Amino acid sequence: MIRLEKGDDILPSLRRFAAKKRIGAGVFEGIGSLNTAKLGHYDFHTKNYKFEVFSEDLEILSLSGNIAMMDNAPLPHAHVTLGKRDFSVIGGHLDEGSLANMVEIGLSSLPGKLVKSRDDEVGLNLLQLRRRLKPAG
Amino acid sequence: MIRLEKGDDILPSLRRFAAKKRIGAGVFEGIGSLNTAKLGHYDFHTKNYKFEVFSEDLEILSLSGNIAMMDNAPLPHAHVTLGKRDFSVIGGHLDEGSLANMVEIGLSSLPGKLVKSRDDEVGLNLLQLRRRLKPAG
Amino acid sequence: MIRLEKGDDILPSLRRFAAKKRIGAGVFEGIGSLNTAKLGHYDFHTKNYKFEVFSEDLEILSLSGNIAMMDNAPLPHAHVTLGKRDFSVIGGHLDEGSLANMVEIGLSSLPGKLVKSRDDEVGLNLLQLRRRLKPAG
Repeated sequence: MIRLEKGDDILPSLRRFAAKKRIGAGVFEGIGSLNTAKLGHYDFHTKNYKFEVFSEDLEILSLSGNIAMMDNAPLPHAHVTLGKRDFSVIGGHLDEGSLANMVEIGLSSLPGKLVKSRDDEVGLNLLQLRRRLKPAG
Repeated sequence: MIRLEKGDDILPSLRRFAAKKRIGAGVFEGIGSLNTAKLGHYDFHTKNYKFEVFSEDLEILSLSGNIAMMDNAPLPHAHVTLGKRDFSVIGGHLDEGSLANMVEIGLSSLPGKLVKSRDDEVGLNLLQLRRRLKPAG
Repeated sequence: MIRLEKGDDILPSLRRFAAKKRIGAGVFEGIGSLNTAKLGHYDFHTKNYKFEVFSEDLEILSLSGNIAMMDNAPLPHAHVTLGKRDFSVIGGHLDEGSLANMVEIGLSSLPGKLVKSRDDEVGLNLLQLRRRLKPAG
């Protein structure tokens, strides 16, 4: 369990923690609250992210992600569902610049390493796994 | 960790993977993106699912589910929260016909087997557990 | 895996289960359906929860939380994302008075104990961890 405090930037905090603890592969789930969220949505046709920043108290309804190695450094990737004061919900890819009010994260370190590398066809950094369910495209 | 590729149908892919690896009990969490989602909502009074298909790039904000055995074959059951391009959110029971852009799933195999069977009173396939918190109805 | 039945109140059920099984630390994820949800949103400026009750069949798209000890009793804390019949989504902190149609919860017991205590500055019960990513405040 990891606890993030007021103002902590979620992704850099997870990256520093994984680097310090030498975690090369992991999955995490968290709950808590953000005061700023930078959300992204990826368009697979144009291969571009669209971003938007939300600045208000947002309950973290789900924070799901994984940690893999890319260019010899741990790279956390997370998606988030956020609840507003009127109980409506927004969400997307969680980007740097998303700041905690208070976040509790359960991180499971996996044996070995997960490795990501750039996939130019998709336009994203993808996990390089043997256990794909069928050969790519 | 399992990676699904463009066009993979989520539930049949998980079913094939579980059958091949002889997984009789498991829980999973995933993130990624769908290009088609068939969502269901169950009405406990009429005992019917209502379905709707969404065809656009949808970020998977959460994908949660479990795998149990039913009629001697693994049966994955999943619910999903999906983010649209405007960061609004939809979600429901994930049905067959939900197709990946790219999905990363962390699957934890559990010891033993989980078994589901039909519950006519509820109208659903339910986990048969000893650890119910109190006797059924 | 735990299964909750029609009418079970989620949080007290988890509390009783954890007390009976002497679980002092845990994380859980669940899916299923509620017929009543009492949702909360915490305002970090006024330090108050705002609550609202929703009474309809709601698919549980994600149910994420943890169990810690507070005043020598297990205290579950959960956030929830819920799907309505039109596939729109609401969510927040899950409070007592949230009643199951049927819920399947995967609970991972952690070694040792997680301890919560009141933090007057924040106004919430917070996990007391050594693994904060940086010193508080």
